[in-house]
Amino acid sequence: MSGLSKNKIKWIRSLQLKKNRDDLGLFLVEGEKMVAEALRDFPEMVEEVYSTTDFTFPKFNKKVELITKIELSQISALKTPNKSLAILKKVNNKESVKSKGLILALDGVQDPGNMGTILRTADWFGIDTVVCSEDTADIYNPKVIQASMGSMLRMNVIYTSLENYLATCELPIFGALLEGENVYGRSLEKIGVLVMGNEGKGIRPNIKTYINTPIHIPGFGKAESLNVAVATGILLSEFKRREGQC
Amino acid sequence: MSGLSKNKIKWIRSLQLKKNRDDLGLFLVEGEKMVAEALRDFPEMVEEVYSTTDFTFPKFNKKVELITKIELSQISALKTPNKSLAILKKVNNKESVKSKGLILALDGVQDPGNMGTILRTADWFGIDTVVCSEDTADIYNPKVIQASMGSMLRMNVIYTSLENYLATCELPIFGALLEGENVYGRSLEKIGVLVMGNEGKGIRPNIKTYINTPIHIPGFGKAESLNVAVATGILLSEFKRREGQC
Repeated sequence: MSGLSKNKIKWIRSLQLKKNRDDLGLFLVEGEKMVAEALRDFPEMVEEVYSTTDFTFPKFNKKVELITKIELSQISALKTPNKSLAILKKVNNKESVKSKGLILALDGVQDPGNMGTILRTADWFGIDTVVCSEDTADIYNPKVIQASMGSMLRMNVIYTSLENYLATCELPIFGALLEGENVYGRSLEKIGVLVMGNEGKGIRPNIKTYINTPIHIPGFGKAESLNVAVATGILLSEFKRREGQC
Repeated sequence: MSGLSKNKIKWIRSLQLKKNRDDLGLFLVEGEKMVAEALRDFPEMVEEVYSTTDFTFPKFNKKVELITKIELSQISALKTPNKSLAILKKVNNKESVKSKGLILALDGVQDPGNMGTILRTADWFGIDTVVCSEDTADIYNPKVIQASMGSMLRMNVIYTSLENYLATCELPIFGALLEGENVYGRSLEKIGVLVMGNEGKGIRPNIKTYINTPIHIPGFGKAESLNVAVATGILLSEFKRREGQC
């Protein structure tokens, strides 16, 4: 048990802020399960591992640093830290969009919990590419990572000018809009872009312009709207159920 | 501007804890929009209103107490308090389940954000009754109320022994289970009970026993599971889309 220096604790904690993650090209992954997943599937991304229990991983050739529970709580961004924390290198995914299936586009989704849940849901439905407006919640935010249950590691998430991307996009562009067509009845192409908007404000007018197929989940009660992660799940489900059956 | 006494602040804050809400039969509703909705739709439930801006409501015959922003932050359970806070009387909904449509049943959903989102989603799809195991997150928890966007006020949410309820239930009982049948292909009755389980553990074995129609949302990617609120949304959507079209 070596003991973490104050400076080291401060440095690890600094990665809870986007600016520092951007500057250093690093981010935090927490929890026994997600750290094990990172070591198993993306060992080349893992820079450092801290854990309250000792373990080794065949593909990981660095040392797991044993720390105390108190030290873990000092470096963790979670209310209830869970055994391990790893520091990972960000991958450079500023490359162009090249998915062969449905692409998800997010226009200013703000809440980290929603963002993580959207990534987890998209991963469940086999979406490999998510294009985000620059002001969408950062995938390297600890709360996004936690809510994504590790799905963010597997996906190509690109932050760019959504307007520029859609302006040059030749695929059908679907958008979740209250004035859209009932999604249940209509056919949906397998390939295209599905745009989801901000929690309160929806899809911005400059982005709406590019939507050639507005769709809508019919409501049957008194709620004014659906949570954006739930709406994303329902719409992705609608796309996917047609693949096998229509 | 009268100024809130220390005791009053302490008393209002005490309603953030379930025990005190249960003892006093009161709960907090926060935010300008939700307080206005409560005053409009359920004026008989509203006991006290505190606000940083003055307003009157035709159906509400008590006085809105003007407070400062600092006082609001002292009584609020939210990180970013929003203008108004009201104290409401709980309604006694320990009565028997008497819905004429699909009923949602929750077996130990723990996270208040998930619980609130589930209620908002169920309200969207016209579900009026939710039967919860005793250990499901409290609908009067401030985080549940916030995530439900007021839907919890409109619904009949019953906390009871879920096992006893299902044992005497004569409706078809559906359950979200990994080993269930692909929901896309099969017909679904309009009337019945849909059981959703805990975030980590799913539906408990003693509850599983009563499920006569296990259903499943097919996965196409690598995520191990869906968030429970998203899964609830997708399944309720599957029930509802059949109503108009099958």
